[in-house]
Amino acid sequence: MTKRLTIALDAMGGDSAPEMVIRGAAIARTRFPDASFLLFGPEPQLAPLMTKHPKLAPVVQIRHTDGVVEAHAKPSAALRQGRQSSMGLAVEAVAEGQADCAVSAGNTGALMALSKFMLKTLPGIERPAIAGFFPTMRGESVMLDLGANIQCDASNLVQFAVMGEVFARTALGVIKPTIGLLNVGSEELKGHDILRTAHGELSEAKLPGQFHGFIEGTDIAAGLVDVVVTDGFSGNVALKTAEGTSKLISSFIRQSFKHSPLARLGYLFARPAMNKLRARLDPRRYNGAIFLGLGGIVVKSHGGTDALGFATAVGTAVDMVQQKALDKIREDFAHLHEGEAAPSQAV
Amino acid sequence: MTKRLTIALDAMGGDSAPEMVIRGAAIARTRFPDASFLLFGPEPQLAPLMTKHPKLAPVVQIRHTDGVVEAHAKPSAALRQGRQSSMGLAVEAVAEGQADCAVSAGNTGALMALSKFMLKTLPGIERPAIAGFFPTMRGESVMLDLGANIQCDASNLVQFAVMGEVFARTALGVIKPTIGLLNVGSEELKGHDILRTAHGELSEAKLPGQFHGFIEGTDIAAGLVDVVVTDGFSGNVALKTAEGTSKLISSFIRQSFKHSPLARLGYLFARPAMNKLRARLDPRRYNGAIFLGLGGIVVKSHGGTDALGFATAVGTAVDMVQQKALDKIREDFAHLHEGEAAPSQAV
Repeated sequence: MTKRLTIALDAMGGDSAPEMVIRGAAIARTRFPDASFLLFGPEPQLAPLMTKHPKLAPVVQIRHTDGVVEAHAKPSAALRQGRQSSMGLAVEAVAEGQADCAVSAGNTGALMALSKFMLKTLPGIERPAIAGFFPTMRGESVMLDLGANIQCDASNLVQFAVMGEVFARTALGVIKPTIGLLNVGSEELKGHDILRTAHGELSEAKLPGQFHGFIEGTDIAAGLVDVVVTDGFSGNVALKTAEGTSKLISSFIRQSFKHSPLARLGYLFARPAMNKLRARLDPRRYNGAIFLGLGGIVVKSHGGTDALGFATAVGTAVDMVQQKALDKIREDFAHLHEGEAAPSQAV
Repeated sequence: MTKRLTIALDAMGGDSAPEMVIRGAAIARTRFPDASFLLFGPEPQLAPLMTKHPKLAPVVQIRHTDGVVEAHAKPSAALRQGRQSSMGLAVEAVAEGQADCAVSAGNTGALMALSKFMLKTLPGIERPAIAGFFPTMRGESVMLDLGANIQCDASNLVQFAVMGEVFARTALGVIKPTIGLLNVGSEELKGHDILRTAHGELSEAKLPGQFHGFIEGTDIAAGLVDVVVTDGFSGNVALKTAEGTSKLISSFIRQSFKHSPLARLGYLFARPAMNKLRARLDPRRYNGAIFLGLGGIVVKSHGGTDALGFATAVGTAVDMVQQKALDKIREDFAHLHEGEAAPSQAV
């Protein structure tokens, strides 16, 4: 790469900002030696923190702002008052071509509202979606929408399928991703009209991926498809129910090992296996939900993550930039209703 | 109890019917010594199986029918052709007062269609719902609807809340259950209009339980509320996503313990804890989804369960009968819009 990769960071988003963001950037810097960073936030607070990261400091430019989007601010308020915030300016840097992507661990609704306003949607896309990773029996899958669009029509779902398929190729490296529409059963007659219409359109559409048809909730973790398409309500319910179930089982495991002195002893022997399990389920491995369908790359990190998780989110953004995901989405939309499936070649 | 409890069983529903059903009845018989059973199915097939259960046989009447509802029959086909099936006759026995409740491990859609047709809905209830149990950090919760009603309006959701609250009192023994409406966030402004309207109505309604407000997917397994109310689409997605996640983690645990010879050794010591965990997550413990809102008690067992799981489903049906759950639902609907909350006393 000749051009240096530039990543805009909202220094003030997330429960442990700005320290967590800066430490995350330091980890990302070691992974992506070509990257430089624009760090948006209050200079008097950020500059002293940078002195602790002598390897990171030379590739960071601090862009001062005192504005911060509060964790519970409404999207409309963020749009009115948040454009000069650390979050708003990070997204603006992408819109103005100063940065290749932006990452924030702040308020999701505000970040989406600012991103839509500043970056607009790509041609053919009515509504952007939030996509994320799920661990599965076969590795990882992506799912969208995770909550940006509570109600969706059939064409929204078809657009999500196209964007999700590019995301799976880019971020998971799957060559011909399979796509499933989340429903209450796999039979074609199940579900409501919107889903059946979307099923019909996806069966006809020319996608570089392969449309599998309807899937059920159990199929998500089974890894039956690479891309799970659903509206933002069901996607959010699925994501958070899976998170809750995972926490519940982890808690049951801990309780089981504390149950008796023998069980405690058993834990000593089981520890390597349990550590391996913990690593596999570590939410930091799956951190970073991407906003798809916009004219720029914005990744939302979980607000409660740590530096390692934040670095994962930065990695997702970098993948999308380096593999020219936006060009692929543009190409796939151009070919969607053509006679021949033409996988996007923009690499 | 003076009157003997009579349970109608669809002998032919489920993957391993009729053996599984009969073995399940034998387990239920030891738990409920007062119960007798009407067993619907082909007499030449059932009678020889009964000889293996000398303790069960005296309390079982076989009611012969050759008709069977196929596992993938459409509800409309079951209504046309299935009334003389083992499933249809089991439900009819409840409608005609010959049995106090019916249990089937057959086709869910067919069972709901036949139950609605034969038992009708209770006054004030537009649509029946399917309710089931979830393991949580605090014990167990109930959730409805799990898939009977793909799209719901606000009054459906309010009705589900009333029925679910009676179910939690009856089956979980919670005196004043808390009720949550599943949404994408807990703030009152989140979600779509139907949810906000239902939220408003439930805040005003006179329920013996306590309306908590909106909850998120993570709150289900956390056990934040005793009753999770949602439409059948989201409920089905949540149920099956939780099932899938649980299977995924169990598989990860097995893989972790096979990872190395040391991990295998660790398993020997961890086995008691792992057995305890397995018992806690055992789907048979949570088997048995109840159809709520009908003029009779019908419980749907998972089709893939074994005798122990089937007996759990029978237990849920017996709880509902013995605690006069239908009377409680009737009472609560009568009081719903009154000035004073009056917990139903029909015990």
